[in-house]
Amino acid sequence: MAHRGALDRFYSVIPAGGIGSRLWPLSRADAPKFLHDLTGSGSTLLRATWDRLVPLSGPDRIMVVTGRAHRAAVEAQLPDLEDLNVVLESEPKDSTAAIGLAAAILYHRDPEVIIGSFAADHVINDRRGFKRAVIEAAAAADAGYIATIGITPTEPAIGFGYIRCGHALDIPSAPSAVMADSFVEKPDLETAEAYLAEGNYLWNGGMFISRADVLLKQLGESRPELVAGLTRLAEAWDTPERGAVVDQVWPLLEKIAIDYTVAEPAAAAGRLVVIPGDFDWDDVGDFAAIAKLHSAGRKSDLAILGENARVLADSSTGVVVAQSGRLISLIGVTDIVVVDTPDALLVTTSANAQRVKAVVDALKLSGRNDVL
Amino acid sequence: MAHRGALDRFYSVIPAGGIGSRLWPLSRADAPKFLHDLTGSGSTLLRATWDRLVPLSGPDRIMVVTGRAHRAAVEAQLPDLEDLNVVLESEPKDSTAAIGLAAAILYHRDPEVIIGSFAADHVINDRRGFKRAVIEAAAAADAGYIATIGITPTEPAIGFGYIRCGHALDIPSAPSAVMADSFVEKPDLETAEAYLAEGNYLWNGGMFISRADVLLKQLGESRPELVAGLTRLAEAWDTPERGAVVDQVWPLLEKIAIDYTVAEPAAAAGRLVVIPGDFDWDDVGDFAAIAKLHSAGRKSDLAILGENARVLADSSTGVVVAQSGRLISLIGVTDIVVVDTPDALLVTTSANAQRVKAVVDALKLSGRNDVL
Repeated sequence: MAHRGALDRFYSVIPAGGIGSRLWPLSRADAPKFLHDLTGSGSTLLRATWDRLVPLSGPDRIMVVTGRAHRAAVEAQLPDLEDLNVVLESEPKDSTAAIGLAAAILYHRDPEVIIGSFAADHVINDRRGFKRAVIEAAAAADAGYIATIGITPTEPAIGFGYIRCGHALDIPSAPSAVMADSFVEKPDLETAEAYLAEGNYLWNGGMFISRADVLLKQLGESRPELVAGLTRLAEAWDTPERGAVVDQVWPLLEKIAIDYTVAEPAAAAGRLVVIPGDFDWDDVGDFAAIAKLHSAGRKSDLAILGENARVLADSSTGVVVAQSGRLISLIGVTDIVVVDTPDALLVTTSANAQRVKAVVDALKLSGRNDVL
Repeated sequence: MAHRGALDRFYSVIPAGGIGSRLWPLSRADAPKFLHDLTGSGSTLLRATWDRLVPLSGPDRIMVVTGRAHRAAVEAQLPDLEDLNVVLESEPKDSTAAIGLAAAILYHRDPEVIIGSFAADHVINDRRGFKRAVIEAAAAADAGYIATIGITPTEPAIGFGYIRCGHALDIPSAPSAVMADSFVEKPDLETAEAYLAEGNYLWNGGMFISRADVLLKQLGESRPELVAGLTRLAEAWDTPERGAVVDQVWPLLEKIAIDYTVAEPAAAAGRLVVIPGDFDWDDVGDFAAIAKLHSAGRKSDLAILGENARVLADSSTGVVVAQSGRLISLIGVTDIVVVDTPDALLVTTSANAQRVKAVVDALKLSGRNDVL
């Protein structure tokens, strides 16, 4: 078997699934976070992700895994996305099933494939830095590791998970790769400050780069039934049996994040490496993150999102999302979050941004799906 | 001339003019403050004012002075208002012209009339206490004084004007009447606290009770041209000449508040008496006042105004006015003011409630009359 270079075998996978409940009422079941332009760049987050990956894998080697309901919107955003590369979920099954199915399908088509999975709704502006890190990660994947990209922290953030770095490795074409010792959940401020002081912690950007066969093998160690299901799906995928097998298998798949089924076990087994990324990165998890993105850290700013927004602000800071076309007037409100949509209005503060999910949960419980 | 009792000659006048700019975007040019139910009682402020006056003057002796644009809305609110008692202004000329014209018309119809003028947009719940005070004020008016009703302060309010009380008088049927020494504008907190400690200050409720001839005579001392104009209008009012004379005279009338043309000069001349009123009273001047009215002083409350309001609030206090039918969600915002109307949204805090007028002024300057 002639050895192809890592990038020649590289396939990008974009799981485009999460609604982004903490960004309600902007993000909705029918208008999830990845379909919004949260940066004011003119591109949706999904489109920006695509544009970032084209230089790595080309437009014909980017696979999108998304819900059936979002197919039309995704295809409208990505006109160059090929039918072959659209994987539709009949119901959401979290990231193990989404990325695992993509890996299984691509492995079935090309057993040597290296896949990189990149969230559809993160923000990275430094495409050059991103590309450099992915190329190193692909080289590490080629050497048999599961690779992730860790972001060099710029502040003691408490909204992100961290990766504890271990010793350096000597992987050809991946000079900055180090062992990933362990993953740590979102810390409190004191812990986050200690991480920054120690210097060997990176933010977990949720990117995984691996040979498809290595990823499926790792997954099989902790979740053999899941791999069996994914393999059945993959074998039927490019045949007339796909529909029937999906109907039969998909509903039974375990719903679990890939962090628990692949990343943490691989780290524990010494098979996970991390490439430190020096580029900017944000998962834009809540409205506080949006405010920060727009103000570039300046506390005095009011960020305004929305085409033709009509906002009259006096002594006010924070973020306004204007989607209803109404005149919005703010007087003397600081760190405010106002999200104005045609059928729902949210008023909160940056400090409470994480609590937005609780409102969504309350609305779900009370059956008010009309505004979700 | 057989002497009729004071109440037999009593006529109520309701100047219904002000928009209530500090209550924008709830109050608008086409939906001024007096046409809103700000107390949650089910009645507009205008209707509540009417209901408070009927026991004093009967429904056939209540005159409403309002803008031409509000005629239909006023008549819809007050089905018992007689045509004879509707005075329409072609353009707003402030309270001297409004009350002065009512006085002149009523004087022309009945030279012995005693009038009481009561703002259309104040809140008083204790109708019995209000009635007692007006009856005393009418007796003082019968004795030749101009009478006002001062409200016993319950706190060192800085949003109201005050009346400094002088010595007691001995007026038949007006045992609590005292001289009004002077009027003082809205004080700062320290001054207001001193007023409360001194004990001889009352809030200026803006109610004036006087014989029409006495009021016109007092006005004539400072504004003879104004009285001449009002007299011309009154003489033509119940004749076919009304329209022509209004077109000719009204635009030329000076635009000035009655405080400066009647109340203060009368106090300076020793002709103004004040009846202390022990009833509740509020001019509901801004959203902070609305929040306070609804919370009865409790800091922990969120007041919600609006029929079929859909509000989901978590750890939030203040006031929400819900007029758009949208779901409104508040998280962790305290002393907040959210006014949600179909074409404009206001977000501010109780502490900034007085600054709302500045937004209205800015909108006027920029020609955005569509939302005013």
